[in-house]
Amino acid sequence: MRAVVLRGERDIVVDDVPDAGVPGPDGLLLRVDRTAICGSDLHLYHGPMTVPGAHLGHEFVGTVEAIGADVHTVRAGDRVLVSGVIGCGVCAACRAGDVVVCLNAGTRVFGTSLELPGGQAEAVGVPAADTSVLKIPDAISDEQAVLLTDILPTGYLGAQRADITPGDVVVVIGLGPVGVFALQCAQLYGPSRILAVDLVPDRLARAAALGAEPIDAADGNAVAKIYDATGGRGANAVIEAVGADQSINDAILCAAPGATVSVIGVNLNLAFPFPVPVALMKRLTFRVTLASIPTTWSALVPLIASGKLHPEEVFTHRMGLSEAAEAYRVFDAREDGVLKVLLDPTT
Amino acid sequence: MRAVVLRGERDIVVDDVPDAGVPGPDGLLLRVDRTAICGSDLHLYHGPMTVPGAHLGHEFVGTVEAIGADVHTVRAGDRVLVSGVIGCGVCAACRAGDVVVCLNAGTRVFGTSLELPGGQAEAVGVPAADTSVLKIPDAISDEQAVLLTDILPTGYLGAQRADITPGDVVVVIGLGPVGVFALQCAQLYGPSRILAVDLVPDRLARAAALGAEPIDAADGNAVAKIYDATGGRGANAVIEAVGADQSINDAILCAAPGATVSVIGVNLNLAFPFPVPVALMKRLTFRVTLASIPTTWSALVPLIASGKLHPEEVFTHRMGLSEAAEAYRVFDAREDGVLKVLLDPTT
Amino acid sequence: MRAVVLRGERDIVVDDVPDAGVPGPDGLLLRVDRTAICGSDLHLYHGPMTVPGAHLGHEFVGTVEAIGADVHTVRAGDRVLVSGVIGCGVCAACRAGDVVVCLNAGTRVFGTSLELPGGQAEAVGVPAADTSVLKIPDAISDEQAVLLTDILPTGYLGAQRADITPGDVVVVIGLGPVGVFALQCAQLYGPSRILAVDLVPDRLARAAALGAEPIDAADGNAVAKIYDATGGRGANAVIEAVGADQSINDAILCAAPGATVSVIGVNLNLAFPFPVPVALMKRLTFRVTLASIPTTWSALVPLIASGKLHPEEVFTHRMGLSEAAEAYRVFDAREDGVLKVLLDPTT
Amino acid sequence: MRAVVLRGERDIVVDDVPDAGVPGPDGLLLRVDRTAICGSDLHLYHGPMTVPGAHLGHEFVGTVEAIGADVHTVRAGDRVLVSGVIGCGVCAACRAGDVVVCLNAGTRVFGTSLELPGGQAEAVGVPAADTSVLKIPDAISDEQAVLLTDILPTGYLGAQRADITPGDVVVVIGLGPVGVFALQCAQLYGPSRILAVDLVPDRLARAAALGAEPIDAADGNAVAKIYDATGGRGANAVIEAVGADQSINDAILCAAPGATVSVIGVNLNLAFPFPVPVALMKRLTFRVTLASIPTTWSALVPLIASGKLHPEEVFTHRMGLSEAAEAYRVFDAREDGVLKVLLDPTT
Repeated sequence: MRAVVLRGERDIVVDDVPDAGVPGPDGLLLRVDRTAICGSDLHLYHGPMTVPGAHLGHEFVGTVEAIGADVHTVRAGDRVLVSGVIGCGVCAACRAGDVVVCLNAGTRVFGTSLELPGGQAEAVGVPAADTSVLKIPDAISDEQAVLLTDILPTGYLGAQRADITPGDVVVVIGLGPVGVFALQCAQLYGPSRILAVDLVPDRLARAAALGAEPIDAADGNAVAKIYDATGGRGANAVIEAVGADQSINDAILCAAPGATVSVIGVNLNLAFPFPVPVALMKRLTFRVTLASIPTTWSALVPLIASGKLHPEEVFTHRMGLSEAAEAYRVFDAREDGVLKVLLDPTT
Repeated sequence: MRAVVLRGERDIVVDDVPDAGVPGPDGLLLRVDRTAICGSDLHLYHGPMTVPGAHLGHEFVGTVEAIGADVHTVRAGDRVLVSGVIGCGVCAACRAGDVVVCLNAGTRVFGTSLELPGGQAEAVGVPAADTSVLKIPDAISDEQAVLLTDILPTGYLGAQRADITPGDVVVVIGLGPVGVFALQCAQLYGPSRILAVDLVPDRLARAAALGAEPIDAADGNAVAKIYDATGGRGANAVIEAVGADQSINDAILCAAPGATVSVIGVNLNLAFPFPVPVALMKRLTFRVTLASIPTTWSALVPLIASGKLHPEEVFTHRMGLSEAAEAYRVFDAREDGVLKVLLDPTT
Repeated sequence: MRAVVLRGERDIVVDDVPDAGVPGPDGLLLRVDRTAICGSDLHLYHGPMTVPGAHLGHEFVGTVEAIGADVHTVRAGDRVLVSGVIGCGVCAACRAGDVVVCLNAGTRVFGTSLELPGGQAEAVGVPAADTSVLKIPDAISDEQAVLLTDILPTGYLGAQRADITPGDVVVVIGLGPVGVFALQCAQLYGPSRILAVDLVPDRLARAAALGAEPIDAADGNAVAKIYDATGGRGANAVIEAVGADQSINDAILCAAPGATVSVIGVNLNLAFPFPVPVALMKRLTFRVTLASIPTTWSALVPLIASGKLHPEEVFTHRMGLSEAAEAYRVFDAREDGVLKVLLDPTT
Repeated sequence: MRAVVLRGERDIVVDDVPDAGVPGPDGLLLRVDRTAICGSDLHLYHGPMTVPGAHLGHEFVGTVEAIGADVHTVRAGDRVLVSGVIGCGVCAACRAGDVVVCLNAGTRVFGTSLELPGGQAEAVGVPAADTSVLKIPDAISDEQAVLLTDILPTGYLGAQRADITPGDVVVVIGLGPVGVFALQCAQLYGPSRILAVDLVPDRLARAAALGAEPIDAADGNAVAKIYDATGGRGANAVIEAVGADQSINDAILCAAPGATVSVIGVNLNLAFPFPVPVALMKRLTFRVTLASIPTTWSALVPLIASGKLHPEEVFTHRMGLSEAAEAYRVFDAREDGVLKVLLDPTT
């Protein structure tokens, strides 16, 4: 079968690899119908997390080909989506969907190692299926479902863990796909205003169209603009969806006393310079979140099914799996107004 | 000065009464600019809570004429709104705005007794001003502000105390002014669906225009319709805004296991037949709420100022104070598509 | 094998019945090591819920004899405890342990119908084993474990759902075994005082020994005594562990403004006379709870293992299964200082 | 009058200074009855926050001598305690006691600047009295009350903001007076175990006597010992009460997935090296807290009055105000088993 293989830094190839199979009695074999490229895939693509030989991709949906003997919640022929993050599948935390606190330390992400191949492929073996897979309701399309495998849940948890209450002023820093979802999910908590920060004009325009107030950070003084816009108070809740040191620092600085700063951008700095006295005087809550994807489905599935959320609108590019190398290049370069790329494994 | 006086059951007159004054060092004298009639005024109008001689009205805004020596948060000339429910003004609960749990048992409602005259008048004396009065921001009109004195806060707390989480199915029973606000405030908590129950076609149409799914209760089987609409599950949160025994019972019956039923309709039955085994099997939370109005302003004021809420849309009738008797009659009879009546004390 | 069979009202016999077996691929066969009689068994024993022919008992622990093909969390030979309340075992709620909100409406209690035999027997078939069974840690004895199958979890959830915060004044009404556990679990939330209400002197003495202030309700004025003891304020949280109309009414009356009343006593009145205006003026939260037993184990198991809780102290009587008829009689009659009866199926 | 004056680094003198007075219509003049030295006073004493000329002390209780015209909650002759941290006294946040989020940015600490003199003196002027002062109930002694002005509230909020739920494993790092109170307040939330970390043998012994498990950090591997003690899981909640970079880092490292780290030690590093990927993989919540003292009194006062907390046990040294220089020296040097020093302004 064909799969997207990372040969080295910025070196992607769609290669013939051994066929996937059912990875054990608790697993299933999935024929992939749609898969997407995620911003965190770029940490493998351009470093510093490059894993040569890895089969990429943790966002994918498909049709069940075969199941292991112990799988009970889905059957062959079912259209399903898969959590990009999985756990052991047996412990109480995993059974409750909270795979990030897996009691057996089994938290893993598809497509980030040689041990658990990814879903940018024609097929993939999915372990721990009963706790990581959801049958897709008829009211939800494949394009919507693929966004339930990582980034919509991540944006949702970023908003949930920002402690927004009705009437709050919210800041969202970074308006890539995850930031857009964080913005839309923040609106589920009744804020009076959302200030949306980015450098890119069309991202700011998209945020404005979604009801937020754009803050252009191109000149480097986003924090000052936020204070101006809030009469010097700052924001009650800040969601950081970039992952850069500078933007996390901005998130802390623009927070009002008593606020929560919720980081969902991926930052790999083991010594981020955290301003403790600022947090002390403001009595901040600071959260960093790897998403327990399955915990979010009971909220997000009905919101999509009822038309309250339209996550598929983030897809700006639809390409074939065979075009994966070009897709990564465009996505990484932010060319051509790209926000999110969907891949079709059949072409 | 002129004031709306209740002479007896269904007997309203606009009468000359002694001029109001500053009611003590912690109080102020308010010239009333706008005042409204509330559904709970009807409990005095048509019984069973008739208090002959009472000066009615607990929803009013105006301009400060004079303040007592101990008032610090507003001054003469300020445009202010007043909580319809007040407390002692000194205890920790009152200072935090939570007047319903006043530690000195001082919770009172304007216009419901001979002791605390109401605001359907040219002027009114307001005690405990520092804890019951808010300076109205420029961005908020008098018509919006008068709805912050009781029914928008009540609808808001009804929604807040229904424990709605994103994706939930919500039922709102009763689409009078309080129910409409409960519906709009429920939307602040990110539900996937709101089912709105009433008997009156134009109220159902208004709910549909606000994004809810209308459930016509005219044929008496609203509960069955709710189960049909939810695949037999019932609702995760139910807000009851009528106060009748039947509708509270319906609220309990249409709740899903684990749900919360939040009652904001005023029911005066000391022996409401509560179905305990139903609540047991469903593990229900059942709440009844008298609103601590001032606790809601920090959320509702920015939501109105930013244009997220437009409460003034509930006013269907604007009349002069001199027309109060006719206003009560029309409002009580639900004639002429009336939803909410605003009175102008200058005419 | 032998089992406790209910022939009719107050008519218990230990009978030979067909051997239990593995009840399906998701189930297991348990040899019962210890089982207890619960206050709610008495609703079957003396009516009004008598089910002639039922095999009684929902509190039991034992050793796994055999498992079905789909059971993964325990194996033959394991010492396990079983939730007295189970669900379908497949839906997301059940997998999270929240069996009372089973999405397939599969909530059932062992030993209360002809469909699901009870555990006061030498052996029992346990369905939905992966979601209803817990391997007992070595640090926990059988006598402790049997109390994790119903009444300690029920007392715990009664306290949890009373919304106790540090410094609160708590009232516990009813000091039977469930009430004693509610009292001990209330202490996990840092109250400043617990007022413990009962009629029976030795139960009041036991509560005092546990650090509570006894309130003797024998003269019928417990509510007045609670107001006296709290300077007229009432209690911030009330746990009702009797189930009588009178005691639920007392619970509502002795609650302070803003309080929560948490009912865990089993009341079967479909028309309990609920005083709505009292709840309105006090802004009450009223909860009735059927316990999702498995959700409590992650908290209660470490509390027992670390010696913070000693639930086995409630056992006043240890008898053989063959003495079940006498055990029920004594327990129902409250003879001989009985608080809780443990049965040994081997004798 | 006499006051403790900081002349420079490690240079304390008890000096004659101008008499304190009522500092405005919202203030009062307090004759100080007891005052204590706080660990955070040492940041002024030995640097880096030395303010030459400052009158030190933010922990004090006393008797009201005179009040301003606008003070209503206390009167001359009342025995009162004063929040060490105050705000503007007028805004909604201050009136609710949440002085750290003062909407007028008026948060200040007594005795840390030339603008707001401290309470290690014979008398002190207290601004914003209605929101910063509490009449001491008869059941509470001066020695207990002085601990309600800063460090018991700080320990309490450190525990509250650690999100402890019943059954949790808690780690407390640092067993000085604040850490001891954090430990005792953690017990209000029902943990199964508390692991208490320090270097000093008598502090570890004190923690053990309070029911915690001592972890000796003298050999530098406290984190490893915590993992050993928890079967490799780490702690569900960690309270850091030292303020050193190393101990904050240890707090993050010993946290289990999903845990909360609550920092109440004062750390002045504007670039603390925060390990973001560790927080990401563990989905941490990280909080830093300056205490809004008055918000804690409604919980802590009844806990002391009912005998559930005995904060006065931390006092190891009772000295006269005239001995302040020696008192600071001993406290800073940790000589003579000192844990907390109480000063008597009359001697």
